[in-house]
Amino acid sequence: MIYEEKTMKSEKIYEGKILSVRVDTVELPDKKYSKREIVEHPGAVAIVAITDEKEIVLVKQFRKATETVLLEIPAGKLEINEHPQDCAIRELKEETGLEAKKIEYILDYYSSPGFANEKVHIFIASELLSGEAELEEDEYIDVVKVNMDEALEMINNGTIKDGKTIIGIFMAYNKLNNNE
Amino acid sequence: MIYEEKTMKSEKIYEGKILSVRVDTVELPDKKYSKREIVEHPGAVAIVAITDEKEIVLVKQFRKATETVLLEIPAGKLEINEHPQDCAIRELKEETGLEAKKIEYILDYYSSPGFANEKVHIFIASELLSGEAELEEDEYIDVVKVNMDEALEMINNGTIKDGKTIIGIFMAYNKLNNNE
Repeated sequence: MIYEEKTMKSEKIYEGKILSVRVDTVELPDKKYSKREIVEHPGAVAIVAITDEKEIVLVKQFRKATETVLLEIPAGKLEINEHPQDCAIRELKEETGLEAKKIEYILDYYSSPGFANEKVHIFIASELLSGEAELEEDEYIDVVKVNMDEALEMINNGTIKDGKTIIGIFMAYNKLNNNE
Repeated sequence: MIYEEKTMKSEKIYEGKILSVRVDTVELPDKKYSKREIVEHPGAVAIVAITDEKEIVLVKQFRKATETVLLEIPAGKLEINEHPQDCAIRELKEETGLEAKKIEYILDYYSSPGFANEKVHIFIASELLSGEAELEEDEYIDVVKVNMDEALEMINNGTIKDGKTIIGIFMAYNKLNNNE
């Protein structure tokens, strides 16, 4: 049975710089009410950048939320009214210095639909030109390149633990295999 | 350069039923301060349940955060001190009625490390016995079964848009192919 939860009341709890939180009171199909705690996020892009040597570009950075250093594909939040593809080109340049002559949309997905509205748009970038990274003042990032077999092994052995990176690598792998 | 962001101050913004929010003031490598908005979540499990007919069990439900009906693998939040595998067995039974005679850990990953600490633990369940679902009073779920080719096609054409489901299906596909 398909249904929607009608919003009976919506309370803004927090309005931050990168996220907001609200609590909705919703009506269920049986007419009872329930509460939904929701994180609002502007959405993000993530880029599988593939070099001419068929290596994947990863960025290594400390993530405060998880208190760990993570290996991820380059990514970033959408600015207001920014088109995802423009954001992908911008973030790849900022984090790695790379300019992509070719960029292709792959898919979009929800990272945590149980509590957040964040949608992640994934692109594959290729025909890369090197340049200078332009990190934001609170970003500290190392760039690492791995080949596809290494990337898949790093997913299997738990070295790569970031959702968008796992999805991006699998999608790129399937795409490269189908094109051969 | 590997570094950690030292917490100089931590402010609790919201303490909810399923999530909390805090804002940390952190010290960067250049000794400047920055703010990190962080969503705390207990973590979750997700289960790729594979029937004897090699079909994958999906659940269809309305998600308030995204305001859409989503197709997902069965999943749920960890209870306090609950072992992920016990949680996986419990959630599969609650949402689908299925009891798994065989359950196997596949991987864990962070769903949104830029702003949330949620870790998702993925399992593959097989040798399934049918039974009665035991939905929570605010859960309304339909169960759908698809074969592996259909599942992969649903990822590619955007019918499946949930991160844990995409990762779970890819991992199960690789595992089944490697075992053959």
